[in-house]
Amino acid sequence: MENKKLVEAITDREVNFAQWYTDVVLKAKLATYAATRGCMYVHPYGTAIWENIRTLLDARFKETGHENVMLPVLIPESLLQKEKDHIAGFAPEVAWVTHGGNEKLSERLCIRPTSETLFCDYYKNEIQSYRDLPKLYNQWANIIRWEKTTRPFLRTMEFFWQEGHTMHETEAEARKETLQMLNIYKEFAEQVLAIPVICGRKTEKEKFAGAVETYTFEAMMYDGVALQSGTSHYLGTGFTRAFDIKFAGRDGKLAHPHYTSWGVTTRLIGAIVMVHGDNNGLVLPPAIAPVQAVIIPIAQHKEGILVAAERLRKEISKTVRVKIDLSDNTPGWKFAEYEMKGVPLRIEIGPRDVEAGTCVVARRDTGEKTTVAIADLKKKIPEMLKLVQDTLYRKALDRRNKMIYEAKTISDMQGKAGFALAPWCGDLACELAVKEKAGLISRCIPFDKPLQGGEKCVCCGKPAKHMVYWGKQY
Amino acid sequence: MENKKLVEAITDREVNFAQWYTDVVLKAKLATYAATRGCMYVHPYGTAIWENIRTLLDARFKETGHENVMLPVLIPESLLQKEKDHIAGFAPEVAWVTHGGNEKLSERLCIRPTSETLFCDYYKNEIQSYRDLPKLYNQWANIIRWEKTTRPFLRTMEFFWQEGHTMHETEAEARKETLQMLNIYKEFAEQVLAIPVICGRKTEKEKFAGAVETYTFEAMMYDGVALQSGTSHYLGTGFTRAFDIKFAGRDGKLAHPHYTSWGVTTRLIGAIVMVHGDNNGLVLPPAIAPVQAVIIPIAQHKEGILVAAERLRKEISKTVRVKIDLSDNTPGWKFAEYEMKGVPLRIEIGPRDVEAGTCVVARRDTGEKTTVAIADLKKKIPEMLKLVQDTLYRKALDRRNKMIYEAKTISDMQGKAGFALAPWCGDLACELAVKEKAGLISRCIPFDKPLQGGEKCVCCGKPAKHMVYWGKQY
Repeated sequence: MENKKLVEAITDREVNFAQWYTDVVLKAKLATYAATRGCMYVHPYGTAIWENIRTLLDARFKETGHENVMLPVLIPESLLQKEKDHIAGFAPEVAWVTHGGNEKLSERLCIRPTSETLFCDYYKNEIQSYRDLPKLYNQWANIIRWEKTTRPFLRTMEFFWQEGHTMHETEAEARKETLQMLNIYKEFAEQVLAIPVICGRKTEKEKFAGAVETYTFEAMMYDGVALQSGTSHYLGTGFTRAFDIKFAGRDGKLAHPHYTSWGVTTRLIGAIVMVHGDNNGLVLPPAIAPVQAVIIPIAQHKEGILVAAERLRKEISKTVRVKIDLSDNTPGWKFAEYEMKGVPLRIEIGPRDVEAGTCVVARRDTGEKTTVAIADLKKKIPEMLKLVQDTLYRKALDRRNKMIYEAKTISDMQGKAGFALAPWCGDLACELAVKEKAGLISRCIPFDKPLQGGEKCVCCGKPAKHMVYWGKQY
Repeated sequence: MENKKLVEAITDREVNFAQWYTDVVLKAKLATYAATRGCMYVHPYGTAIWENIRTLLDARFKETGHENVMLPVLIPESLLQKEKDHIAGFAPEVAWVTHGGNEKLSERLCIRPTSETLFCDYYKNEIQSYRDLPKLYNQWANIIRWEKTTRPFLRTMEFFWQEGHTMHETEAEARKETLQMLNIYKEFAEQVLAIPVICGRKTEKEKFAGAVETYTFEAMMYDGVALQSGTSHYLGTGFTRAFDIKFAGRDGKLAHPHYTSWGVTTRLIGAIVMVHGDNNGLVLPPAIAPVQAVIIPIAQHKEGILVAAERLRKEISKTVRVKIDLSDNTPGWKFAEYEMKGVPLRIEIGPRDVEAGTCVVARRDTGEKTTVAIADLKKKIPEMLKLVQDTLYRKALDRRNKMIYEAKTISDMQGKAGFALAPWCGDLACELAVKEKAGLISRCIPFDKPLQGGEKCVCCGKPAKHMVYWGKQY
């Protein structure tokens, strides 16, 4: 209770989940509101999490043969308009530059809402022959979409992301790439972010503007609401035809390459908050925590304590991201502070510990405290971090699975939290009716739930074409 | 000669240096022109160089206590206008967003030409007490400045940079930070980029808009022209007063913090090209080369060659960024290709080498070839890379020093390549006269060239206040 007073209390997540989320983002110092409407000042702590995500994902992209490039932030209007579905989808949400210095521009430029059009213009000159394929490029960039209502990380006017754009000789190869990248995302979400995800295909209505197929991985937040966590698109040859990109094939004939794009954003930080956080604040998966263990000396003015704490730090600093807090704040204040920041392990060392050659390690996820011999620390801390990582994943998986239910009629889907799994006939009208009557949006047609035969559409009762996950969404 | 035909020839740098530069940038695949006027598509190779620069500089920033943040790309007009000198300096070169989606904005937003105004708005809420100081933040970001004439990397409408922004309790501490960062840049340029630089203070005329002092490090390109390679500003309390940032000091009184900012850009890639490149293309310092050594098998269809080449690669791949080229191109074509790309070392292995247990290592900088026993390779390659790095620096230093001359009158400065070192009275009129009559712009007032006494201004003949380096500039 005393610690609670020391760090400003946050809203209880059972009382007001939205306010709890905002409190955690602000008080754990992930980000704050910028002077620019709908944008964030991302604090060092939030930035460090994004940098860890970037480093770990980038390594996976490089392992699979991808390279990074840097393309402009501005797109000439004429370029954006080349692919008709694409411009129709994005026109309402782009920011337009109309003046440079004091002059009015002869052609407007938009700030990239995504970069398919630039990549196509770029690739047009880089691809002549099948020998130039595949092209496997990615960029880490900032994006602007003119959103009306925004929330830090979840939906902001400017966000940060990576966007992979690849071109291939054949449809089969491009489709394989699309699914390979989706799979890398799934594995990354589960193993690194400790967030279980459902993979599948988007319906026609929910597809990316200009895509043949959009694949998605969907996570469930603590409140049962879905977060589309990233997408991978098979774009076919629509863009490459519109941009007149052609290559001489093995048969000597000219053909249009097959195009894919895929991306994840700073939204993933929002997912981490909403999947793992609790009423004491943020809970970070060790794999992306900027500080994996914090050492807090108890009675630090007493002789030998600081030396012992520093020795602990050195002992583990080669394998663990560790920090000591030597500030004047009380241990209680520090406990609450690092709980708020979601640091996975807290190591306490006081006079009695020094005497006994031990320290106390507390887990952020369970609160559990263990006394550990200093001699064992180097071995124990990595083991405990692994345990925290695994426990977070398992907890999130159990919770999510409990909040998935099967539905046979729309009334089964009304007023429930979580995801409904329900058959669908494939008609847009039924998809819209589910949204109108139950407030649920199709998340995806999952890979691992084929029809068994005989299922009827949850809305119209006609024979079903697919099983679909439905849910509210952020 | 044969290799020359295989790779498209580039313009001779003695004939047309500007064209040579463009040829190297395009043909070494650093970058190409984007559809967006004045912007680049930065290829994987150019991006990899920038990522290496980023990684190595970022480590130096972190070692000195700096942390990264991410601030918006858009600045509301009212924010940009808060500091008068600053807006006056930047207004002519910003891009304005006037529409979001289909709506006209009530307030225009500019794309950041630099982020002092955003950092001030951010810090205003983060700084209350001297305990909150210093704030030592940096960001890696993209910048837009509405340039009329652009050249890849040297002057582009969009460029990439890092911008450090720090706030301090005292003037002394802020000034120390300003010079510390300048010194980190100098050391980085010399040790990592192998580019000798001159450090000093900018004149009033050449200062950053809003700065009390601007410090610069200036490099000389192969053609004797200066490239301002980065700057570090002591901004005093002008911005913090304008933004009403106040902290309670140790004496309990409110005070304005002292502000610094400092940055380097993708321009450094242009400097690398123009300092080290030659008529065969790019020459990269090993410290930032994406590929430090390329292995080229000779007669690769013969038995045992590929196995031997792969064994070489494995042998050194833990300490060196190495690649094997197994493509169908001839060895001659490959030699020319990797010379164009400036790869520091080429390792050739053919049938006779395999028999003898040796390989041939060729240096990009000197062309020198050495036969090396395969058993020694692991030790030799890092040594040779260090030698290349040192040689590049020494060569650039010698060349630059030969192109620095002392001048007593403006006529001494006319029609010469390189930097003039000449005394100056401190009057703007004389600075402008030097530009008008000799075409030279003041580079800086160097730290290490104090007046000896009795020097007269190179222009008006009155007693000099400073020694100044003058030069043409990119």
